[in-house]
Amino acid sequence: MSPPALDVDMRGDTDTSAVPVPDPLTVNGVPGWRAKMAQIPTGVAAACSSDMFKSPNCYTKPKAKRFDRKYTPHPVAETVSFAGDVVLDRLSVEAKSRKQSTLKGAAQYLKKPGLISLGGGLPSPEYFPFEHLDIKVPTAPGFSPEETQKSGSVLRAGKHDIQEGNSLYDYSQPPYADWHCTMTAGSTYAWDTALRVLCERGDYIIMEEYTFASAAETAFPLGIKALAVPMDDQGLIPEAMDDLLSNWDTEARGARKPFVLYTIPTGQNPTGATQSAERRRAVYKVAQRHDLYIVEDEPYYFLQMQPYAGEGGAPLPPPATHEDFIKSLTPSYLSLDVDGRVCRLESFSKVVSPGSRVGWIVASEQMVERFVRNFEVSSQNPSGIAQIVLFKLLDEHWGHSGYLDWLINLRMQYTGRRDSMVHACEQHMPREIARWKAPAAGMFHWIEIDWRKHPGLASGKTRDSIEEEIFLSAVDQGVLLSRGSWFKADSSVVEDKMFFRATFAAASSEKISEAISRFAGSLRVQFHL
Amino acid sequence: MSPPALDVDMRGDTDTSAVPVPDPLTVNGVPGWRAKMAQIPTGVAAACSSDMFKSPNCYTKPKAKRFDRKYTPHPVAETVSFAGDVVLDRLSVEAKSRKQSTLKGAAQYLKKPGLISLGGGLPSPEYFPFEHLDIKVPTAPGFSPEETQKSGSVLRAGKHDIQEGNSLYDYSQPPYADWHCTMTAGSTYAWDTALRVLCERGDYIIMEEYTFASAAETAFPLGIKALAVPMDDQGLIPEAMDDLLSNWDTEARGARKPFVLYTIPTGQNPTGATQSAERRRAVYKVAQRHDLYIVEDEPYYFLQMQPYAGEGGAPLPPPATHEDFIKSLTPSYLSLDVDGRVCRLESFSKVVSPGSRVGWIVASEQMVERFVRNFEVSSQNPSGIAQIVLFKLLDEHWGHSGYLDWLINLRMQYTGRRDSMVHACEQHMPREIARWKAPAAGMFHWIEIDWRKHPGLASGKTRDSIEEEIFLSAVDQGVLLSRGSWFKADSSVVEDKMFFRATFAAASSEKISEAISRFAGSLRVQFHL
Repeated sequence: MSPPALDVDMRGDTDTSAVPVPDPLTVNGVPGWRAKMAQIPTGVAAACSSDMFKSPNCYTKPKAKRFDRKYTPHPVAETVSFAGDVVLDRLSVEAKSRKQSTLKGAAQYLKKPGLISLGGGLPSPEYFPFEHLDIKVPTAPGFSPEETQKSGSVLRAGKHDIQEGNSLYDYSQPPYADWHCTMTAGSTYAWDTALRVLCERGDYIIMEEYTFASAAETAFPLGIKALAVPMDDQGLIPEAMDDLLSNWDTEARGARKPFVLYTIPTGQNPTGATQSAERRRAVYKVAQRHDLYIVEDEPYYFLQMQPYAGEGGAPLPPPATHEDFIKSLTPSYLSLDVDGRVCRLESFSKVVSPGSRVGWIVASEQMVERFVRNFEVSSQNPSGIAQIVLFKLLDEHWGHSGYLDWLINLRMQYTGRRDSMVHACEQHMPREIARWKAPAAGMFHWIEIDWRKHPGLASGKTRDSIEEEIFLSAVDQGVLLSRGSWFKADSSVVEDKMFFRATFAAASSEKISEAISRFAGSLRVQFHL
Repeated sequence: MSPPALDVDMRGDTDTSAVPVPDPLTVNGVPGWRAKMAQIPTGVAAACSSDMFKSPNCYTKPKAKRFDRKYTPHPVAETVSFAGDVVLDRLSVEAKSRKQSTLKGAAQYLKKPGLISLGGGLPSPEYFPFEHLDIKVPTAPGFSPEETQKSGSVLRAGKHDIQEGNSLYDYSQPPYADWHCTMTAGSTYAWDTALRVLCERGDYIIMEEYTFASAAETAFPLGIKALAVPMDDQGLIPEAMDDLLSNWDTEARGARKPFVLYTIPTGQNPTGATQSAERRRAVYKVAQRHDLYIVEDEPYYFLQMQPYAGEGGAPLPPPATHEDFIKSLTPSYLSLDVDGRVCRLESFSKVVSPGSRVGWIVASEQMVERFVRNFEVSSQNPSGIAQIVLFKLLDEHWGHSGYLDWLINLRMQYTGRRDSMVHACEQHMPREIARWKAPAAGMFHWIEIDWRKHPGLASGKTRDSIEEEIFLSAVDQGVLLSRGSWFKADSSVVEDKMFFRATFAAASSEKISEAISRFAGSLRVQFHL
């Protein structure tokens, strides 16, 4: 599913030449569009390229910037001093030294008619002990267990099927020509690879002050530190990032100025914050000014929910059409990326199934090529067994249209759960010390606690010991939340505030209400309310 | 499937204390053994440890060496000079700095009865659009397509199944107590991780002079170079490795003495060589002398074939029993590893299916733990979809006994193909210039060509240009082989000999014969025979 395009001309910021508006490619137009495209190769482990399914309009756009050599700095950036060539060479020593696999080079000879290959090392398919795989999947539009029981579809992947069809995704959006995508063994692995492609030991990366703890823990053992940028209700504050970068002191930090921004723009983990379109544009401008490379991690992108209808309010009706649904989504950084400075990490983990270890990235051809060179001699492609299961479901069974039905269904389910969570807070939580905002996307509710009102403060308790007491008392009362401090990007930053993260993705509405009631009770005891 | 134990006492070399002989655990004894063990945890993404299925006998053995601090060098090694502490600290800066995942730490609270968790970030299973998965698999003992069509079994993995049972593998073999195993996203990825755990930029690793090109290409972009050890018909020559290491000149090489040996002991890629038990013992002794860490890559271990019955001979009958089959297999390095200096890379790619991206490693607890810390924030576990498919087939359907049937079936299939390949060579190849030995395992036939008899030599052609001519002429005649030089571990080494690799895994017996006939014809023209 491609993120919606912005209807504003972002290019005005860098280039005044007009870009031809592509024919809008609607969901219904996909089958016709595919019929005109080249058939995808059907051989075992056949090579595949994004160029097989890009719209011809794409090639009328300018190409992405390259990040491995000196180039003219962005006009806006001219007032900012660069540290020279080193800063402009964004690829790591490791990434630059990767060559194409020797053995894959021999594939060029396979096109000769009648050739018998004794060259490879793959077993013959007759020695794979799987004849076929049947997958039972739920039924649209309700996708309920009862309907599925009665009329769920069984999808079959046969051993000798000739795979036809094409990728599910048609990204017409990036406003430059040479974008590519490739599958990854999941977003965590894609992020690990991004760090190895872009960073050296000793570098800093830019992260939101609260971030996905695993993303930070991927970076630290590589000798990479986090520069934590303050956040508000809309997430990353661009002015704060600008300040930090404009005042970067290479000597004092003992590191070159950071140029990789890791951000979770939608339903951020852990804060639940979603950056508005305006916020994203402002962040992108700062990225241009400081020549940053943006890695946007978007597992929650399609968990954007209905607007919160207020205390006690019922959810608004679902989007009437697929187009309405797509229009309701906040634009991705990818759709704003006139320069080719964004790599989007995509995942099925929150919208189809976690643990498939099948994800994908979209970025400029140069970047994707460097990722692929790494994958070839490391993770290789995602599991073929998982690929075929997802292919049968997403492409052959659902198609774009069925997938949108599924996503709209999920949107309403998550809206209902989010509402349960927020209503439970409204009903139970002591407002004297607790503050929250209904999240617009994702699966996390971020609750601020005014720890300065804790009675233990007078007897010398610290902020950290109070956070721990609140956490452990809640466990004692039978509810597990995540402590905000677990998600600090830079553990050396002293926290002024205190937060707890509660997910509404896993427990039922009744359990959510019960859990929040327990947490509220525990807080009242703690705070003598 | 565990590799067979050696019946000699390898410990004599390091320690004179006797190790109690474990009760032999036969294939038929596995179900009874399992019944006595703890049930495996059934929660979503439950933690699991090798200690859940190890034999109690295991804990009577000594523990593995540690590789992160100074320890008393091996007595035999005392005559060899070490470069000091740095050499004895085997873990990389990256590996040593890895910590346990913060969020996984919160799992300790989940055992509290009645606890409602709002802590995690996994979606609820009702939002996974897979109800069940049916897998059709072939039928023992013949596993033929016709039998399968009639009576192949369908295995079902339901969404709400409670997974019971245990790991397929019971490794009673490593002669130290604290071995562990963990799944990997395939052996290529496990090897990439081994390099990141054990090496720093600038290091050398030890490889066979001809090796799997991708394994070398995994290492090079990490700034790691290969020390190439000469080979004979049995693969790596231990005396040659000893010489190279004993005469290591740190100054001249600009690198510390290498301590990681990468070897493919069975059906080596590309040479097809299999190290005998004696050869392995000799290599292990050199590894002890120089305090090496051995990474054994064993995808072809269970493709050990029937002995070659000679020119025109028919294959010998299959092993009569499972025990006979297991006894016929050459012991692994793991079974010789009294010190805990071996990491075995295991793969399903050659015996079940390539591309599942599910493999596993066996090594000491210390090493496995460092691998797992890396996996947690990178590849994570292998694809759950692939895991369930393999679990249903290997554990619930085949069990140890059915898997051994499958492996014996494969052994006979590969023996037949190997024989076709060797017989075709005997029939067609010009013996004046071509030399080969029937491989004992794997899928590769390694053909030496006496390039010094090439008529082009007189007119100034080089060895390399002759190799290229032979390769391209063969392609012209409709047969693709792999050039031996593609597999050189150290491209700067001047080759004295010339080889071509032919696989018998992919083409049918008829095609193999036709292809070898074409290659032979092309050689005759080239060499004016």
